[in-house]
Amino acid sequence: MSPKITVELLRQLRHAMRNTKYIAEPIQAYIVPSGDAHQSEYIAPCDCRREFICGFNGSAGTAIVTEKHAAMWTDGRYFLQASQQMDNNWTLMKMGLKETLSQEDWLISVLPENSTVGVDPWIIATDQWKNMSKALAGAGHSLVAVQDNLIDAIWMDRPTRPSTKLLTLGLGFTGLTWQDKMTALRSKMAERKISWFVATALDEIAWLFNLRGSDIEYNPVFFAYAIVGMNTIRLFVDIKRLAVPMVREHLQLDTPSKAELSIQTAPYESVFTELQAVCASLVPKEKVWISDKASCALTQVIPKAHRTLIPYTPLCLAKAVKNATEIQGMKMAHIPKGTVTEISAADKAEELRSQQKDFVGLSFPSISSVGPNGAIIHYRPLPETNRTLSLNEIYLLDSGAQYIDGTTDVTRTMHFGSPSAYEKETFTYVLKGHIAVSAAIFPNGTKGHLLDSFARQALWESGLDYLHGTGHGVGCFLNVHEGPCGISYKTFADEPLEAGMIVSDEPGYYEDGLFGIRIENVVLVVPAKPKYNYRNKGSLTFEPLTLVPIQAKMVNTDILTQKEVSLGNIHRCSLKPGKSISNSSAILYVITLCV
Amino acid sequence: MSPKITVELLRQLRHAMRNTKYIAEPIQAYIVPSGDAHQSEYIAPCDCRREFICGFNGSAGTAIVTEKHAAMWTDGRYFLQASQQMDNNWTLMKMGLKETLSQEDWLISVLPENSTVGVDPWIIATDQWKNMSKALAGAGHSLVAVQDNLIDAIWMDRPTRPSTKLLTLGLGFTGLTWQDKMTALRSKMAERKISWFVATALDEIAWLFNLRGSDIEYNPVFFAYAIVGMNTIRLFVDIKRLAVPMVREHLQLDTPSKAELSIQTAPYESVFTELQAVCASLVPKEKVWISDKASCALTQVIPKAHRTLIPYTPLCLAKAVKNATEIQGMKMAHIPKGTVTEISAADKAEELRSQQKDFVGLSFPSISSVGPNGAIIHYRPLPETNRTLSLNEIYLLDSGAQYIDGTTDVTRTMHFGSPSAYEKETFTYVLKGHIAVSAAIFPNGTKGHLLDSFARQALWESGLDYLHGTGHGVGCFLNVHEGPCGISYKTFADEPLEAGMIVSDEPGYYEDGLFGIRIENVVLVVPAKPKYNYRNKGSLTFEPLTLVPIQAKMVNTDILTQKEVSLGNIHRCSLKPGKSISNSSAILYVITLCV
Repeated sequence: MSPKITVELLRQLRHAMRNTKYIAEPIQAYIVPSGDAHQSEYIAPCDCRREFICGFNGSAGTAIVTEKHAAMWTDGRYFLQASQQMDNNWTLMKMGLKETLSQEDWLISVLPENSTVGVDPWIIATDQWKNMSKALAGAGHSLVAVQDNLIDAIWMDRPTRPSTKLLTLGLGFTGLTWQDKMTALRSKMAERKISWFVATALDEIAWLFNLRGSDIEYNPVFFAYAIVGMNTIRLFVDIKRLAVPMVREHLQLDTPSKAELSIQTAPYESVFTELQAVCASLVPKEKVWISDKASCALTQVIPKAHRTLIPYTPLCLAKAVKNATEIQGMKMAHIPKGTVTEISAADKAEELRSQQKDFVGLSFPSISSVGPNGAIIHYRPLPETNRTLSLNEIYLLDSGAQYIDGTTDVTRTMHFGSPSAYEKETFTYVLKGHIAVSAAIFPNGTKGHLLDSFARQALWESGLDYLHGTGHGVGCFLNVHEGPCGISYKTFADEPLEAGMIVSDEPGYYEDGLFGIRIENVVLVVPAKPKYNYRNKGSLTFEPLTLVPIQAKMVNTDILTQKEVSLGNIHRCSLKPGKSISNSSAILYVITLCV
Repeated sequence: MSPKITVELLRQLRHAMRNTKYIAEPIQAYIVPSGDAHQSEYIAPCDCRREFICGFNGSAGTAIVTEKHAAMWTDGRYFLQASQQMDNNWTLMKMGLKETLSQEDWLISVLPENSTVGVDPWIIATDQWKNMSKALAGAGHSLVAVQDNLIDAIWMDRPTRPSTKLLTLGLGFTGLTWQDKMTALRSKMAERKISWFVATALDEIAWLFNLRGSDIEYNPVFFAYAIVGMNTIRLFVDIKRLAVPMVREHLQLDTPSKAELSIQTAPYESVFTELQAVCASLVPKEKVWISDKASCALTQVIPKAHRTLIPYTPLCLAKAVKNATEIQGMKMAHIPKGTVTEISAADKAEELRSQQKDFVGLSFPSISSVGPNGAIIHYRPLPETNRTLSLNEIYLLDSGAQYIDGTTDVTRTMHFGSPSAYEKETFTYVLKGHIAVSAAIFPNGTKGHLLDSFARQALWESGLDYLHGTGHGVGCFLNVHEGPCGISYKTFADEPLEAGMIVSDEPGYYEDGLFGIRIENVVLVVPAKPKYNYRNKGSLTFEPLTLVPIQAKMVNTDILTQKEVSLGNIHRCSLKPGKSISNSSAILYVITLCV
């Protein structure tokens, strides 16, 4: 991994920051956020603006360029990777460390008096805009919306926005028709006296219409917006995609249907003017729902008096709790679906997976890392970094796929020779944390972040830790990362865990320059029946969907309690203590991973 | 406990809500918050307005009276108590239950269109005001400040504000002179380019000036405000209190001293006009620090452009990390200080305590409860509820005292006969939680709320839980509850735990109508030295200051792991499994509690 050379790009960007073709007055700083106009975590190549300007290609990070400085903020998962991908024109700002300034404080410390800071309003969320704007104003600066994206202005070979074929999903996969979902959404709106809802998140739109696309690699979604009223449905999408008979029939575009279930389609770009038209005809007290993470540009179209910002949309909440058909699909997706033969490494995994029934694509780029590469938490093998699997180094494979019936995500860490005592010790601490979360019983209404410390307890006791969260929501043939639930030490406004939600359980341990360990299952939230039932609240626990065994030779069973061994077996960690697994069996794990 | 009859009081309050003597236009609802003008948790009798109007006397709760309804919000610690103290003119709003409406949502659901809601701006915090005001405005209502308190208007025998004798503390107890503290405060101000600081919290003012009072029962504080500039110190306090030579000398009121360390004193009530005068002379960009929990009335005196709200003041943070002298004092305060003789119950505890060296007073009203009274989490024995200690019921004693060298708070639960298997089982789960927190090792920078689930894990596994947090900060001869740290499942903006902070560790279990169990130690945050040191972050753990043993006969040792038994001994839970303690020894515990 050699860093991207950014001298010339920074010169051009700084020139654009003074160019009246794009802006009325020169700006002294330009913010380049990570995302696209849809709050997507993974983004299409045409939206990788932060990567273009600084070289760092992780999933989270914000770049800020001033006349003299260039800095990029990212979190603990990416410290190592970012330091390797950026050249020395850039300062790496390590988020979560006490001494690291926030973006606001840094700007205030480097900007000359009365500066103007610019940002593209389509790729910054309203609350981020507000916080940044307030902090800058407090120090005598101002934040302005720059309509023309300045990165696009200097990006000569920027790819076009994808418009892939749409896939329609029948009841056998979804459990509910899009009409059912629309009715449920409207009853949620009526409950809260809301007359319009603006959908901006791509996975929510895909889920609502029972459609999938492949506009963003690993995420079966398509670029679209939707505006739903009590009697109106507007879908904004590249009109060419709707020419396919199967899609037209699925959406009932040509067949007469009840007026309130007939869909009006319009070009993707027209959402701005159409939302303006909707807002122009609002009567007093009418309210429009939009996510508080939606783009500032779109949010500000809705007059403040009519705007109701919500942290989680009703679609996000409904989607998170899987119905019986979806749970069945997720279980099917986790069962190996074909005959596998001997292979030598993880490259083979995708090929094998692609031969399995209902395979659509990977759910994220496989992290296949040997030895020191394993310590780069979101590592992705490239020709120049590729290491050979050996008998001496730990191998970590984190991979998953999209199947029509569900989405998978699994990590196993293994050793094909003799792991050192230290490798076994730390692996076992991670395993203890994994089991503690998966086997936890907790009352209904508990938020995921309260379980995070269970995953760390054994590591903490030995003075160790890991710099990422413990789990994320998993979509059902949707994004492998989804809200509104998660398991993290970060205090965020997560929603309580509920039976039917699906999350990952993936503690880890990483030694820079040596190895990385992570053990990840996808687990379903299910009701638990402990001995008592305090205040009739009911309890929950997890049922693992992942079926892949853990490599027993990595485990120091002296550190496990008897309870952990038996819970480990129940929670699909398939430990058979005392019985070591041979090298030839170990390689079989790599194959079994293809679920 | 029989409920307070409130028919007539509510009639009078509703009359006042329409009386133009107090308000220009009638209001449709009046909010009665819990607190005083200083964000105090415990309050003086003259400030117990919420108790006066509804009868409920717990430490947390907000009453709202509309033309037709009266409702009171409190949390899980008080559900039982509040339902017993309020008559049926009042609806108990159980906070934390999914189905309970927030104050805002409830007001919106019951108010007629375009209503006006009133509140005393001196006893509502700015952020609460903002949230309430915004929510009401969104539904077409408005929130207004009512300068005359309407409860005071109808409260005929309202007590006067206390003005007790001030106690001066020397270096031997404080470790730092008030001049040292002032200099440290000013250097924090200079760091952040702040020119004025307004101190409103009583314990912060007491700590800053090395003074104590007894204006509020159990809290060694005195009613005051302070305004500190870079060259000015203003102390607002009942001037009569400053006539004592010892106080004058301590504050150097008569001796010439450096100009920037000379204190100007002014009457308590004049803080409003004095702050106005300070603000009138501010130059552009000058900033004034005030807590975001300070009263709305005082906060709004500072023009927005000059106002910097902070969640925790520099005094709060400095006070939380105890210095060597304070830690030594806290340790001394926890050691029994006199010869004790046989007694029969907890009433004796205070008398015995009062004979001990450096005793000042209790740190909160003792919770001494037998059997079903134990399930009322913040129970306080009254003649009409008083139960006799017996051989058949569990006895819970939660008590603490103020000593000149420190503050104590301890809870022990015991049985003088034969506890049932269920009582022992649940006691042991609570003990497991207590030990899990006290023995936890965690990285520097960890916030207390991440430890909360450790206290609940064993209860959760059996389907049990408790409806209160696990720990609170403890002041050093200051309030027994203090910020900015704590251990709770509630997500609040707590500050990371730091070596030198002191918190309580007090999980519990409560069976309504039967018994209450709680095990509480006061613990000091200390550095830990585990095997490894990840990223040189360093680790922390707790050292118990409380010395009282746990009653072994309450413990089912079959449920404890060997590790828990040995940690329990280290963490002052003094378990000697297998060796039961006789009834005569058990009664000795009640006495030992007097630390």
